[in-house]
Amino acid sequence: MKITVVGLGVIGGSFVKALKGKGYEVYGIDTNQQTLDMAKEEGCIIEGYLDGKDIIPETDLTIICLYPSLVLDFIKNNQFKPGSIVTDAVGIKSYFLREALSIIPDDVEYISIHPMAGREKKGYQYASKQVFENANFIIVYHDDNKKSTIDFVQEFSKQLGFRSVKIMSPEAHDEIISFTSQLPHCLAVALMNSDDQKYETGKYIGDSFRDLTRIANINEDLWDELFMNNKQYLLASIERFEEQLDILKNAIRDNDDETLKAAFRKSTKRREHL
Amino acid sequence: MKITVVGLGVIGGSFVKALKGKGYEVYGIDTNQQTLDMAKEEGCIIEGYLDGKDIIPETDLTIICLYPSLVLDFIKNNQFKPGSIVTDAVGIKSYFLREALSIIPDDVEYISIHPMAGREKKGYQYASKQVFENANFIIVYHDDNKKSTIDFVQEFSKQLGFRSVKIMSPEAHDEIISFTSQLPHCLAVALMNSDDQKYETGKYIGDSFRDLTRIANINEDLWDELFMNNKQYLLASIERFEEQLDILKNAIRDNDDETLKAAFRKSTKRREHL
Repeated sequence: MKITVVGLGVIGGSFVKALKGKGYEVYGIDTNQQTLDMAKEEGCIIEGYLDGKDIIPETDLTIICLYPSLVLDFIKNNQFKPGSIVTDAVGIKSYFLREALSIIPDDVEYISIHPMAGREKKGYQYASKQVFENANFIIVYHDDNKKSTIDFVQEFSKQLGFRSVKIMSPEAHDEIISFTSQLPHCLAVALMNSDDQKYETGKYIGDSFRDLTRIANINEDLWDELFMNNKQYLLASIERFEEQLDILKNAIRDNDDETLKAAFRKSTKRREHL
Repeated sequence: MKITVVGLGVIGGSFVKALKGKGYEVYGIDTNQQTLDMAKEEGCIIEGYLDGKDIIPETDLTIICLYPSLVLDFIKNNQFKPGSIVTDAVGIKSYFLREALSIIPDDVEYISIHPMAGREKKGYQYASKQVFENANFIIVYHDDNKKSTIDFVQEFSKQLGFRSVKIMSPEAHDEIISFTSQLPHCLAVALMNSDDQKYETGKYIGDSFRDLTRIANINEDLWDELFMNNKQYLLASIERFEEQLDILKNAIRDNDDETLKAAFRKSTKRREHL
């Protein structure tokens, strides 16, 4: 089976690294020739290409690891092999899948995935097969997906090292992700930006602050696209969070130990359950 | 020099473990005999005591690692060696130090410290010298502290493995801590509690959610005391955070990419600076 990974950044690079030695014919596409050379030298790809015109028409599985809008451009500008499977690793699905399905040829099966993994740093040098190991993986189906294709992708994700695989609709995916991924990024950004910088903060932090703000180092173009195209669910998640923060704030203001401790017990129980 | 560590939990236990082999005579006090036995077996303390009546009158440096209110009880109920130094590791200082100074005998020097380290789990078994390694350390002074005592504590913290030592007033400490430690705990608790539990959240999280909610597993009695006795600064920190979250929320609602990206750039720059 010929697999081509498009965009060898942290996610795409981790795909080619995790696929090494798994028995597939793996190719890579990237706009950076040095990245392609490195991936080839490391034995992660058989050959690298700056665009898809030679390799995509021969590819059985195309994994497009680009920003959402660039995935759509890539689909428009390439000729896919009839009967082949095309997928992406975009972090939002409802809006995106509608767009993708409207331009994908009828003789190609499009199925969307979300590897719940990543790094704050960009680029192939931060990719590794460890990025995927024991991480969560979501398959986002649509009405025309074949059961056999869903089964194949599920098996494929296990080969890559993912632990848990869930299969769901684009809407359910986006609702969940607004809470488990987008909201945490909002909180990290807001926390970092709420520093009044009166003191040299770095000298007064423990692991908690470090962990909470790690993702405040954020890729602005990517996350702007992700947030703006999932605003309905994200705004609802932010509002639910604000309600809970208000419960704490009011309890502190009113010396209401019981309410505060009840909130602590609730969060502790839930976190332990994770 | 005779050192007695009172309360061999994560912090007290890490003190005796980090002190091992450093040339001090180290004793331990805990209400749990098994903990004392374990610390003695591991060679971290010479002897363990269930209370302070025999060892505290002979101790040159008493490090009290108990909940705030219990520290005050311990001070009231014990006879300290004249000229000795007494310290605590309580996470808030303005309120606490006022109380402590009002009951400490005149012939004892009280100096407060805050090792910016810890673990979510309670108890001696989670203590280790690694807890302190390369962590931040704050010395909180008051008007009657001698320069020589501050210098001694500073040197002492370096021996324990701490990297950065800062010396400051109780008010500055509490203002900083409300932002770098207490606010992150509020956010983690509120995030965990804002889960509407429509989905099996644990299957859809990545490292970001895991990192942000680690401290949602929170010791309810301790943190209730810490929050309630630092409410002025903590409420101000929460409000500054809410303002920043509102900036993001409004930008998302209004499709204001420029404001959103500017917030991302700000948080990224600040986080990289950490």
